[in-house]
Amino acid sequence: MRYPRRSLEVLREVERDRRLGAIGLAVKALDAFKPLAEREGTSVSLLKGLTKRLLKTRPTMICVGNASAELCCRIMDKAKDGEVSEYILREAERMQKRLVLAKAAIADAFSQEVDRPIAVYTLSNSQTVLECLKRIRDRLEQVFVALSDPGHEGRDLSSELSKTGVRNLLVPDMAVGSIMPKVDVVLLGADAVLKDGSVVNKLGSNTAAKIAYLEGRRVYFVAEKVKVHPSDEELRLEVRFSKGEGYVPFFDVTPYGYVQKLICEDGELEPYRVRALADKYAELRRRVSSPI
Amino acid sequence: MRYPRRSLEVLREVERDRRLGAIGLAVKALDAFKPLAEREGTSVSLLKGLTKRLLKTRPTMICVGNASAELCCRIMDKAKDGEVSEYILREAERMQKRLVLAKAAIADAFSQEVDRPIAVYTLSNSQTVLECLKRIRDRLEQVFVALSDPGHEGRDLSSELSKTGVRNLLVPDMAVGSIMPKVDVVLLGADAVLKDGSVVNKLGSNTAAKIAYLEGRRVYFVAEKVKVHPSDEELRLEVRFSKGEGYVPFFDVTPYGYVQKLICEDGELEPYRVRALADKYAELRRRVSSPI
Repeated sequence: MRYPRRSLEVLREVERDRRLGAIGLAVKALDAFKPLAEREGTSVSLLKGLTKRLLKTRPTMICVGNASAELCCRIMDKAKDGEVSEYILREAERMQKRLVLAKAAIADAFSQEVDRPIAVYTLSNSQTVLECLKRIRDRLEQVFVALSDPGHEGRDLSSELSKTGVRNLLVPDMAVGSIMPKVDVVLLGADAVLKDGSVVNKLGSNTAAKIAYLEGRRVYFVAEKVKVHPSDEELRLEVRFSKGEGYVPFFDVTPYGYVQKLICEDGELEPYRVRALADKYAELRRRVSSPI
Repeated sequence: MRYPRRSLEVLREVERDRRLGAIGLAVKALDAFKPLAEREGTSVSLLKGLTKRLLKTRPTMICVGNASAELCCRIMDKAKDGEVSEYILREAERMQKRLVLAKAAIADAFSQEVDRPIAVYTLSNSQTVLECLKRIRDRLEQVFVALSDPGHEGRDLSSELSKTGVRNLLVPDMAVGSIMPKVDVVLLGADAVLKDGSVVNKLGSNTAAKIAYLEGRRVYFVAEKVKVHPSDEELRLEVRFSKGEGYVPFFDVTPYGYVQKLICEDGELEPYRVRALADKYAELRRRVSSPI
């Protein structure tokens, strides 16, 4: 039995997309399951097969794989008799909704941390960070948004903030050292959270967190739980841009020692919970990969 | 008596140039004096007048003003009788030669600091740094050159190094945090040295020096003595680029606490010598500005 054409189209879109954030991409990936719901007699092996393909599509986009594996296992748990079609749609939509709502829950949790007007430094263009900043707009004295070369996504975040009436200043990346004394809080998103609590995010996060540490400023990373990396293996960081000139990485890793607090949709994500989530996602991926 | 046309042309060129380094600009500025040598009966007041105009042309380019003031005072000291023409050419050329040779002397002094193969991090495009790197080419394991937005002068330094056979890697600015653990020495030029030993240089120097401090790496700034700022007043940092988007500074100040060693053409430039040089240049400027 072959995969529905629409599922394969979604796979290709997920593979090629360089615009969506990590969670947006995971939500999109789950769309690949939906056409299976319209098929009579979709089997567990077909479901697992599609999930395995999704796991390979963007291996460094951890939440795509995690969300796909979690959805697959949920559907398998419901459908004990091997016929999964009827559960796919409901479970996929539930899961997508959960992913989308996590952002608001994170913004709520972050908002609790801010008890007075603050100046915030951020970089790149995290939708979760945007949500957090909108939530505390009444307590924002200033927002510094780094341009974020390569990619310059800071420009998008800055204009998004301006549109919603949040005053902000777009700054060159290397102004981070001079600006930090004027900053209270560094607020950064995450592409993945490693098992030891260190955070993979857009290039520059490591530098910003270190400078903040040196200046005694608070550093928050915000991340949906589904971004926890399931393994201890070293992550291969995706290089997105190559201008034919030297070394152009796109991500970096901020060691846990420079992360003041990691905030997820339940509030603080402590190291023991990161490890538990890593184990959970490793187990879900194992179930997907194992023979039936 | 009016200024020779060629002198005024040089003034305009100095005003408009955004390509030459600080020392190159100072050398060019001294050319403005030379046409006065061809005039019969050039007076001290004409000499001072031209120097005052040079002092105003690029006020944040400290070495332009310092070199002009120093040349003016040297000529005045020679010409006790108020007729300065005959001293101008020889003194101007002597001074220009001194400025040009300083780079090589700094490279010699820096070379003494490097007793084993090292990996170096630098940014922007300092001719003095280039000279230093060429001098220790046999002891260079790797050179990381940051792109240096705004301006991207790192690209020029990188290709200059490659032309002379020095292997190097052009890196995005915000990789500084991730790269520093692989670096032994941060080597940076200077646009000005403030009286308290802090250094004005291309944006990003502050960040690089702080990250190096955090990682326990050595930070050297190299600067010709003529770059010492004569005053305690806060320096107005020149903003060179404005892309119509937010805040685009071009320079920053690295506090003395993050400067491991400041190297000038005589070797280490210790804080007490910085203060003495500041006082010297302040006195030279006072003499230029005072009525005869």
